[in-house]
Amino acid sequence: MAKLVECVPNYSEGRDLEKVEKIVAHFKNVEGLTLLDYSSDPDHNRSVVTLIGEPEIVKEKVIASIKTAAELIDMTVHQGAHPRMGATDVVPFTPVSDVTMAECIELANEVGEAVGQMGIPVYLYEEAATKADRVNLADVRKGQYEGFFDKIKEEGWEPDYGPKEMNPKSGATAIGARVTLVAFNINLDTPDLEIAKAIAKKMRAKGGGLAYVKAIGLKVEKRNITQVSMNLVNYQKSRVYQAFEMVKMEAKRYGVNVVGSEVIGTVPMESLISAAEYYLQIEDFDITQILEKRLLDK
Amino acid sequence: MAKLVECVPNYSEGRDLEKVEKIVAHFKNVEGLTLLDYSSDPDHNRSVVTLIGEPEIVKEKVIASIKTAAELIDMTVHQGAHPRMGATDVVPFTPVSDVTMAECIELANEVGEAVGQMGIPVYLYEEAATKADRVNLADVRKGQYEGFFDKIKEEGWEPDYGPKEMNPKSGATAIGARVTLVAFNINLDTPDLEIAKAIAKKMRAKGGGLAYVKAIGLKVEKRNITQVSMNLVNYQKSRVYQAFEMVKMEAKRYGVNVVGSEVIGTVPMESLISAAEYYLQIEDFDITQILEKRLLDK
Repeated sequence: MAKLVECVPNYSEGRDLEKVEKIVAHFKNVEGLTLLDYSSDPDHNRSVVTLIGEPEIVKEKVIASIKTAAELIDMTVHQGAHPRMGATDVVPFTPVSDVTMAECIELANEVGEAVGQMGIPVYLYEEAATKADRVNLADVRKGQYEGFFDKIKEEGWEPDYGPKEMNPKSGATAIGARVTLVAFNINLDTPDLEIAKAIAKKMRAKGGGLAYVKAIGLKVEKRNITQVSMNLVNYQKSRVYQAFEMVKMEAKRYGVNVVGSEVIGTVPMESLISAAEYYLQIEDFDITQILEKRLLDK
Repeated sequence: MAKLVECVPNYSEGRDLEKVEKIVAHFKNVEGLTLLDYSSDPDHNRSVVTLIGEPEIVKEKVIASIKTAAELIDMTVHQGAHPRMGATDVVPFTPVSDVTMAECIELANEVGEAVGQMGIPVYLYEEAATKADRVNLADVRKGQYEGFFDKIKEEGWEPDYGPKEMNPKSGATAIGARVTLVAFNINLDTPDLEIAKAIAKKMRAKGGGLAYVKAIGLKVEKRNITQVSMNLVNYQKSRVYQAFEMVKMEAKRYGVNVVGSEVIGTVPMESLISAAEYYLQIEDFDITQILEKRLLDK
């Protein structure tokens, strides 16, 4: 199992599970592709699919799924709590093994071109972005489906692929390349939300903190505590243990202690193994010493 | 890839690589079995093979390899630095995923029975041992090939399978079941070997330390420091982080510091992930949150 890419396409259908199954069917029983997970949220009216596989196979099947989504989902009648701009809303590619970011950007472009040919406007984002103001998905999606009929005609917002006008039924699609995101929350023994917010601010790149950390302060109502909730957008550069130690350090100023942490969802082994390496002071560790890594590489 | 067992058979041939290749050929290009590694040591005159796969396939191929070793290796002329008692010397089975220790013991018995039917005496060891004095491989192998012609006739040393007399050409074989062993060394900033030995003694189960830790003190000549060299024989019970913190604690008594550690060879992901969990205070972590774990489980 050599070249592996992850893709987490989001589709704007989370209520009609028959439609969802037809979209997800493209990823079932495919040689060279593993459907890791998919879930539908009726409030968001959105389904999130996680799949991993050989780049060419992932590309082919993702394109096919976007075609099916364009046929089944009608954005003119779509409602849901989650921000969205298209029937297939976002399609991020992430390198997993033996695949470079450059290859993921190439994949995003190839899928983008194919989707454009379906008559759907495509915006490339994150590492695949063609302009600085398209790096952040939130900036791209701003205005959402309803606002895009005008936004697409604004100077600087012409799509990277596809027609220069909105597709009413399918909307527009954001396709990107990014490193795996690690969601990591740290619980504080204070109910004071202001303290959690102040620490979060010090953690963020914009606040002078870690370069690849996004952080906010939150209440954890049921435990009467607060939390620094973080996304590590490049866990190979800003490390989990750095985020942990820096929150502890900043909390000291307020006489506040860290009472625990949470790793949310799926994370790559290396994000936690590197913490073990740090705390155990392991010299010259090589990730191929991990049995499971060797099994996957075979 | 659900049920997986590891097997590390050792064969008493490390010089004639044509013979080694014929033995190892049983493990190449086999569906459901991965040959992770094999190496031959001419001084030891011994080859060690590491393979992982589905229990039934591993069993079948290991039995076939033992038959080939019995044909190709003649113990009457074998010489080598490493202790040994048979052409196939030891065959340990280790649970990797979705396999219990009971199943590994069953595997050891099934392979033992088949090898016994080849006319080779078999001794079960470690978790598969049928008597207390057969748990340690060193106790079983004591006397080695040359001594076994008498030992096999001593009361209490009749084999678990096979003939009750020595096989001159193939010797005897030890077959066992055990958990993965984690080799973990901790470096101390003192050249005083007595301190390293004293700490090692406190670490060992026999010295009142951790129940599943074997430890010795060693010199690291090239760095003019010393080391507590440990085997964690059950890393799920006595944890890597416990061993690390306890060595640090004991070293304090001598004003000695830990300057680093080494993880030797291949280790299961969980042995280090559990250290990250401890140091990062992660709440409710589930190993299936690790991407690579999920890929392997699919």
